Amino acid sequence: MKKVGILGGGQLGKMLLQAAANYPVTTYILEQDADAPAVHLCHHYVQGSITSYDDVYAFGKGLDCITIEIENVNLEALTQLELEGVTIIPSTSVLKIITNKITQKQYYQQHQIPTAPYIITHNLADVAANQASLPAVHKLAQGGYDGKGVQVLHHAEDIPNAYDAPAVLEHKLEISKEIAITIAIDAQKRIAIYPAVEMVFHKHLNMLDYQLCPATLPQQLGWKAEAIALSVAKNFGSPGLYAVELIIDTQNDVYVNETAPRVHNSGHHTIEAHYSSQFDMLWRIILSYPLGNTKALLPSLMLNLVGAPNHTGVAVYQGLHEALCIDNCYVHIYGKKETKPGRKMGHVTIISAEPQELIHQANKIKAAVSVLAAT
Amino acid sequence: MKKVGILGGGQLGKMLLQAAANYPVTTYILEQDADAPAVHLCHHYVQGSITSYDDVYAFGKGLDCITIEIENVNLEALTQLELEGVTIIPSTSVLKIITNKITQKQYYQQHQIPTAPYIITHNLADVAANQASLPAVHKLAQGGYDGKGVQVLHHAEDIPNAYDAPAVLEHKLEISKEIAITIAIDAQKRIAIYPAVEMVFHKHLNMLDYQLCPATLPQQLGWKAEAIALSVAKNFGSPGLYAVELIIDTQNDVYVNETAPRVHNSGHHTIEAHYSSQFDMLWRIILSYPLGNTKALLPSLMLNLVGAPNHTGVAVYQGLHEALCIDNCYVHIYGKKETKPGRKMGHVTIISAEPQELIHQANKIKAAVSVLAAT
Repeated sequence: MKKVGILGGGQLGKMLLQAAANYPVTTYILEQDADAPAVHLCHHYVQGSITSYDDVYAFGKGLDCITIEIENVNLEALTQLELEGVTIIPSTSVLKIITNKITQKQYYQQHQIPTAPYIITHNLADVAANQASLPAVHKLAQGGYDGKGVQVLHHAEDIPNAYDAPAVLEHKLEISKEIAITIAIDAQKRIAIYPAVEMVFHKHLNMLDYQLCPATLPQQLGWKAEAIALSVAKNFGSPGLYAVELIIDTQNDVYVNETAPRVHNSGHHTIEAHYSSQFDMLWRIILSYPLGNTKALLPSLMLNLVGAPNHTGVAVYQGLHEALCIDNCYVHIYGKKETKPGRKMGHVTIISAEPQELIHQANKIKAAVSVLAAT
Repeated sequence: MKKVGILGGGQLGKMLLQAAANYPVTTYILEQDADAPAVHLCHHYVQGSITSYDDVYAFGKGLDCITIEIENVNLEALTQLELEGVTIIPSTSVLKIITNKITQKQYYQQHQIPTAPYIITHNLADVAANQASLPAVHKLAQGGYDGKGVQVLHHAEDIPNAYDAPAVLEHKLEISKEIAITIAIDAQKRIAIYPAVEMVFHKHLNMLDYQLCPATLPQQLGWKAEAIALSVAKNFGSPGLYAVELIIDTQNDVYVNETAPRVHNSGHHTIEAHYSSQFDMLWRIILSYPLGNTKALLPSLMLNLVGAPNHTGVAVYQGLHEALCIDNCYVHIYGKKETKPGRKMGHVTIISAEPQELIHQANKIKAAVSVLAAT
């Protein structure tokens, strides 16, 4: 039986393990927090830091394969393990490109993949010297995650607050739509493409409001986006699952925003709405099975359940009963002990043949469900 | 967070835990075998015997709710726990009726539920005295499971081999079709009925060949079967999930064969083929959520993967790659270490809008997949 380790024990690891239980595989988790969502669902839990060379190396030694649920891991240890014959999915060459926003941008450029024009800034002085590029999006080269490490610089007055570290200063696109396309590639270079999903953002909070699948796109634009996403994934030259986030601007031009080389928030709906979920698909890649069917059974909407503002502490869930009253509404509570404002605590997927129905139901769920701190 | 225990750590417990991971619930497993399929997927594993009073009582003390994945558990301990306020699903009153074939038959009779005519036999002498009832099916009152504890007595010559223990001697029906209907009942007595599934048995081996959903039944007969299954479940007066196995004879009369008050082999297809699976449904009942949608997304076929004849030892799986080449074919390997002839080692579900396609694909899978012992 193959021994497969996952670096990180959050919700993505958890859903990977729910899917792993269908297959003949022995699972390992490396995670510092013994109460993390995935910890109780693996065969072997190893407590340790995914950013520590020693912890990652000791964890990986003796495993057949390692995958990640977050990119912020010790790459030196993974590189050494890969040299010693452990399969890393995606390969460390991919992780090296992606974990640094500068090399990620250079990768797109090198492969003629459209992405917003940018300047590399090494420090605050570099930003100040490029005042003419504003308004721009300033992205830290390393350590950004889930919207952290990204700032919008509108005017010259914003410059003093800019990051004083290596970063990318990116032309601010006029966004018309944000979509994501997940692509699976196996060791034989076979490819499977999930339909594009559309992220609908909250106008004021700049947070994901909900996500619809399929995205509503003119056919030509859909093909263009697919071709770009494919080019991103194929040029990495490594088996894996790639969630490519794309921006469509007001000119109907398509740009790659960024890529996650792993299971991703934008693929949660595939658990119930698609024949083969993103989690099932990654196991098929890891275990050398044929790729699954990416088609949708039905249109779907996915809604993150995040910690309510001003609530920090032991999580309690309100309104799940109301949500589960809705036909074909699926709740996923990640089981994190502590909630804090904006923390991803779970998600809800609704499937229906009627896309209009989905948005109506999503609004009911948003009104009903909240994640609060116990008093 | 509710603390819920499951007695037994086999494949049914495993699939219950895969579904539990979506909900806010802390899970416990009582199981003697530390390598059993469900053990690594719960929050708290307790090693012990589900038939021992002390083990079950100690396990259940302090839990909010207990459910079962097999009926052969210590009922005295559960009765005491129920008295002390632990919710048992299904209630011990149901388990007492069902775990004894004699009281189970009497229950059907008492509620005017059609079931094959029978005689209670206390020993071999009773069987011999009822030679005129042959051919008959002789079912041990207690301890039968998965076809064990059941014998067919065709002629007088079979009588010396009959069980010499309390049993039911049942008129042998002329079977035209065997079906199963799963019914969910919650604490508010709300009811949800899954569509009937049809069990197709292997002519020579008398083993389940595959199972189709929906069953192909004339509408009137379907309604009759549903009404009978409903009556079985409702009269128990306890929340729970009930898999009612029914026989349709050559006269198109419908009889209850037996009932399992729990998740059941006949409901495996619901994981992929139905909006709410039987496992999801039981959690909804346990956690007091609204019942799920029992409707099928698509027709389905389920195939048990059993240990190959003459193979006993550490399990290896052959042909999974071929099976997974088939579109919309889902493999569930239970992760039992040892295979033996006929042991349930996994199952495969196929979903398709074309029922004819299902049987064709099932035959391909049967030809490709086998569970052997490592040499």
